[in-house]
Amino acid sequence: MPALTLTELARELGARLEGDGSRVIRGVAPIESARADELTFLANPAYAPRLAASGAGAVLVAEDHAGEVPMAVLRVGNPRLAFGRAIARFHPRPRPAPGVHPSAVVAPSARLAADVFVGPCAVVGERCEVGAGSVLHAHCVLYEDVVVGRACTIHSHVSLREGTRLGDRVEIHNGSVIGADGFGFEPDESGRLEKIPQAGRVRIEDDVEIQANVCVDRASLGETVIRRGAKIDNLTQVGHSCSVGEDSILCAQVGLAGSSHVGRRAMLGGQAGLAGHLTIGDGAQVAAQAGVPGDVAPGTAVGGSPSVEIGLWRRQFVALARLPEALKTLKALVREVEGLTGRPAPPSGRP
Amino acid sequence: MPALTLTELARELGARLEGDGSRVIRGVAPIESARADELTFLANPAYAPRLAASGAGAVLVAEDHAGEVPMAVLRVGNPRLAFGRAIARFHPRPRPAPGVHPSAVVAPSARLAADVFVGPCAVVGERCEVGAGSVLHAHCVLYEDVVVGRACTIHSHVSLREGTRLGDRVEIHNGSVIGADGFGFEPDESGRLEKIPQAGRVRIEDDVEIQANVCVDRASLGETVIRRGAKIDNLTQVGHSCSVGEDSILCAQVGLAGSSHVGRRAMLGGQAGLAGHLTIGDGAQVAAQAGVPGDVAPGTAVGGSPSVEIGLWRRQFVALARLPEALKTLKALVREVEGLTGRPAPPSGRP
Amino acid sequence: MPALTLTELARELGARLEGDGSRVIRGVAPIESARADELTFLANPAYAPRLAASGAGAVLVAEDHAGEVPMAVLRVGNPRLAFGRAIARFHPRPRPAPGVHPSAVVAPSARLAADVFVGPCAVVGERCEVGAGSVLHAHCVLYEDVVVGRACTIHSHVSLREGTRLGDRVEIHNGSVIGADGFGFEPDESGRLEKIPQAGRVRIEDDVEIQANVCVDRASLGETVIRRGAKIDNLTQVGHSCSVGEDSILCAQVGLAGSSHVGRRAMLGGQAGLAGHLTIGDGAQVAAQAGVPGDVAPGTAVGGSPSVEIGLWRRQFVALARLPEALKTLKALVREVEGLTGRPAPPSGRP
Repeated sequence: MPALTLTELARELGARLEGDGSRVIRGVAPIESARADELTFLANPAYAPRLAASGAGAVLVAEDHAGEVPMAVLRVGNPRLAFGRAIARFHPRPRPAPGVHPSAVVAPSARLAADVFVGPCAVVGERCEVGAGSVLHAHCVLYEDVVVGRACTIHSHVSLREGTRLGDRVEIHNGSVIGADGFGFEPDESGRLEKIPQAGRVRIEDDVEIQANVCVDRASLGETVIRRGAKIDNLTQVGHSCSVGEDSILCAQVGLAGSSHVGRRAMLGGQAGLAGHLTIGDGAQVAAQAGVPGDVAPGTAVGGSPSVEIGLWRRQFVALARLPEALKTLKALVREVEGLTGRPAPPSGRP
Repeated sequence: MPALTLTELARELGARLEGDGSRVIRGVAPIESARADELTFLANPAYAPRLAASGAGAVLVAEDHAGEVPMAVLRVGNPRLAFGRAIARFHPRPRPAPGVHPSAVVAPSARLAADVFVGPCAVVGERCEVGAGSVLHAHCVLYEDVVVGRACTIHSHVSLREGTRLGDRVEIHNGSVIGADGFGFEPDESGRLEKIPQAGRVRIEDDVEIQANVCVDRASLGETVIRRGAKIDNLTQVGHSCSVGEDSILCAQVGLAGSSHVGRRAMLGGQAGLAGHLTIGDGAQVAAQAGVPGDVAPGTAVGGSPSVEIGLWRRQFVALARLPEALKTLKALVREVEGLTGRPAPPSGRP
Repeated sequence: MPALTLTELARELGARLEGDGSRVIRGVAPIESARADELTFLANPAYAPRLAASGAGAVLVAEDHAGEVPMAVLRVGNPRLAFGRAIARFHPRPRPAPGVHPSAVVAPSARLAADVFVGPCAVVGERCEVGAGSVLHAHCVLYEDVVVGRACTIHSHVSLREGTRLGDRVEIHNGSVIGADGFGFEPDESGRLEKIPQAGRVRIEDDVEIQANVCVDRASLGETVIRRGAKIDNLTQVGHSCSVGEDSILCAQVGLAGSSHVGRRAMLGGQAGLAGHLTIGDGAQVAAQAGVPGDVAPGTAVGGSPSVEIGLWRRQFVALARLPEALKTLKALVREVEGLTGRPAPPSGRP
């Protein structure tokens, strides 16, 4: 574990130091458990009172943070971002030494850059290309004609199906399947389902991170595309011919049916689902578990299943909680009005 | 890539040609991107206006398609189906040459048909049987006593657990797990959960296709069964002792709790969930994200969570959007009626 | 298959026998299919009439079961639990003979107890420790510094990421990923997403069972913890820094966002989702497909998305089914009241 003085740390993080610059920091920790040689952070001002009881040696706070802080302070524009960088500084992730494990199976026609790591039992198919500095962990499998860019990390049990193309600095976690067939069938003359061939591929641009056990299906024709910087969490489904825009976030267990398009910097909450052939605009937000039946305009937010504008959704579920009582009131009111008019209930019937 | 004249293509697809039969077609593409030597298709008449701007050399249309078409026409009963066959014609999927890779581990008691392909690091357990023409891709694992029929394709990282039985022409995509233990526990005398052994198996009939990272659990006793021609999309859960009927479709991320039964030609939308011990009738339709608490009659459709008849579900969510305003109206009406009667609100209380 | 007399079986199961103790039992089966040499069970008294048509040689029933039973009877406190033990007795699961398969790749610094089984192509990373009697099936991958306790079973295609710690008697089914990175990103100065390093780990206590294709993410700092005896079904997502309490049950496709905590003996139904940073109390119950936005008190039950107290949820959906008709009634009532008052609709507008 490295050790840095606060002066050094402030310089590395671009922070403004208030306190003793000679204090040595040896790690990072949450407010509650940090010790005197550890750095913590305060992103949400609501948690400021917790600093009083913290044993941290120093804390990252926002530039404009006000109030007493009982330890050394590092002021930064975004404490969460700076803390992430501090974690990286104290917990560097070791990179395997270059080389191809003797149990790996690399096809003769595959081309690996000189410093690539290929782990035990990894399989690299015919005509694959793997760029400089990439790591193929044990047990990943590249079918034929796969292209992996530079500085990528592919974890164990990942399958990259035939023709898949990855940009640079892509990381794919364990068990994810990139480029399996899209799900397309059509009843034949006898009513049995016949497969529509899935002859397209998947293309993943630079700086994408895909977590574990995700499925991104190949297109029937053309490409399924995950654009630069998009992040896709565990167990998510991206159907054939979809596209996911730059820096968009798909939380865990999201499902995209085929041919749907998610714009830039959009956010899909966990377990949300999109119908096929629709467009989610740039910067749009989809609440967790929402079921989206149609297009979502850029910069707007939706919730519910089927989804509606998020404000309406909130009013709906507040109203829904009052509905059982409201039906009783309505019934009573019908009786009152019947008493007043001397006539039976309104023609559309009783509630 | 093959090249065919339109006359040849029409004959292969059983289509009626209108146009120059000597035109050479070298591929298939969507309406928007197709070029002069490519075939496209029109399945939805609403897209007919797009043909005007298409550069396609020929288009598959329905027998009864009316209206001007600015390129050669191939008339067929089902353009989508014919186009799928055209994709297969121009993008034949190569089959690995028969043989067992030296890194594969095949148990001495396993029996492989002569022309089976077993890829790198694949594992075939004791007493397994693999039928003629089947392909076991790299890194698939067959536990003991597994039977794989003829012309099956098992992709990388698939696990076929002990005793699993597959029919002919079954395809299972990467990372799917067939026959892991069902989820059964019972509190013991001290309140701790004790496992109910899962001693049954999974049986998958002919022509089933299972996409990636799917789980089909073994039965506790007896069988979990996927019947002929059923198609199961990515990340779907089929619990122990379930059955899925012939030619039924389970979209991505569907979940079936234990001992539920799906009939023939049923359709379950993405992320739909079924409670245990229920029956979905032949031809029934379950909307995406529906949560089905009870049986669904043959030929009917349900939606919502908990699900109701689909027409009611639609009326419910239209009504729900009006609910917040309706509660205000109800409140105002209570005041009006109070004014008329000179008495306080109805006895059941205000909304 | 073993054969036992009913007298022997009664003794092993701690049951009180009524009937011929010399009858030989050779297996176990459901009521419908059990034969004369098989044992069945009756857990739900509603199914008692089915015993009349059953061919079973003996039946496990509750101590206080009343009514005619047409075969030998074994009375026990919990028939389902006793039947599970009978299944285990007649279907013992074979344990692979100890040994390391020659195709396995075990790092020099790894320490394996003497009787461990390591299957074909399994990978055990540097400094791993595997306890006595544990089974690492073919194709499981242990990254560096993983600790596996005694008598664990790790199935094919499981990834145990760096630093993961398992207690004793843990079983993890195929394709599950334990300890992949949590999902944490923060926009950098230019608005691009920058990864927050995930430097923590996953700890799994004794007697936990994790089914197939599950994801349990490592913490950013500290630990994600699955406590003693918890059971997690297929395709479930446990986010970074979560904890799952003793003997709790997470059904298939459940999703936990980061830093959420599930208490002891809680039950989460299939496809339920939890927002981040919340607490589910001991013994709480979350209905299938519920979307939980906040804490759930111990011993309470919630349903719906967003979830509410379960009784309210039930009243809500009963009321919802009546809503379309109620809106018509409300509209008619507005007209009636307008007729009475001679004034237009209430000021808040018509429904």
